[in-house]
Amino acid sequence: MPRQVDHDARREEVATIAADLIAERGLEQVSLRDVAAAAGYSTTIVTHYFASKRELLRHAYRSAVHRTEQRVAAIAPDSPDRLLALCEAVLPLDDERRRSWQTWFAFFGAAISDPDLAAMQRRYVHAHRRALAAAIAADHSAVAPAGPGPAGETARALLATVHGVAAEAVFDPEDWPPDRQLQVVRNAITALRE
Amino acid sequence: MPRQVDHDARREEVATIAADLIAERGLEQVSLRDVAAAAGYSTTIVTHYFASKRELLRHAYRSAVHRTEQRVAAIAPDSPDRLLALCEAVLPLDDERRRSWQTWFAFFGAAISDPDLAAMQRRYVHAHRRALAAAIAADHSAVAPAGPGPAGETARALLATVHGVAAEAVFDPEDWPPDRQLQVVRNAITALRE
Repeated sequence: MPRQVDHDARREEVATIAADLIAERGLEQVSLRDVAAAAGYSTTIVTHYFASKRELLRHAYRSAVHRTEQRVAAIAPDSPDRLLALCEAVLPLDDERRRSWQTWFAFFGAAISDPDLAAMQRRYVHAHRRALAAAIAADHSAVAPAGPGPAGETARALLATVHGVAAEAVFDPEDWPPDRQLQVVRNAITALRE
Repeated sequence: MPRQVDHDARREEVATIAADLIAERGLEQVSLRDVAAAAGYSTTIVTHYFASKRELLRHAYRSAVHRTEQRVAAIAPDSPDRLLALCEAVLPLDDERRRSWQTWFAFFGAAISDPDLAAMQRRYVHAHRRALAAAIAADHSAVAPAGPGPAGETARALLATVHGVAAEAVFDPEDWPPDRQLQVVRNAITALRE
């Protein structure tokens, strides 16, 4: 009997390798052939999973989002610092998270002219904003009642700050060491509590 | 005598047209030939000004930054709302500013793997942060002395929020109408004053 191939696992594996290659070189410099070579598969196998570069980019984006979701899932639901931890899950505080942002920036460059990719990005933002809003509503320091607006609006502003810090930090890691990223986000969280 | 050609003006003109094409279609879908056709010049003339697509992208980025600088220059130095106006100059509040952000996102996608492009982006962020810090230091409501930190740190956090709002709004204009963008930024400025 032929050996059973787990296609979903293999597709995910190739998408992860593609995400890292795109993060490193930029979208234009990565071909399906490059991904195949890096993964150790033939180009035929890779094109079996991803019909086009656009399809590959979509999965590479999902792969980076998936790693973020795993970091979020690892946060204890009753952690007293859940709000900060949710922000940390997205910030480029180490190589892995910086790589995720580099994949996303390659994706953003394509998403400006691709409604489907832009819709994926909107869904990700809304989901993470909802997670922040839930954490604000459940916060032990009672952010929401004392804060300047409903949890949704507060979460919107906090996530925008996190995304702005991240967007600047990706291109300027020296100017944005982890401590400084965290300081700006901690200040934003403290401001919600006042 | 042959007619005198203003090469600088023509290069700027072509860069502006390229910036708009890139904003509309994404970097991958724009060739030097497309830019020539849109500008009404031969490809030979366009390649005389821009030796490569990367060179063209660099100038398209500068063209979008230049339009932002013109908006900043139009703000009265003694305007009581100078701080908000400096933020408004960058936010995607209308089609022109949204187009600038689309050009920038195409640029960011290339900048992740190009140290020169990344350095351009750092210079822009630092310059705008300095402008914000000067406005905070000169603010009539005395933000800086009463604020949570020195003007530079305050400007850093404010600009990060502006960039985060912009980055989300580019892909989700319905979720981020101009009023909502301004509300988040006004709240951030108010928070500096408390």
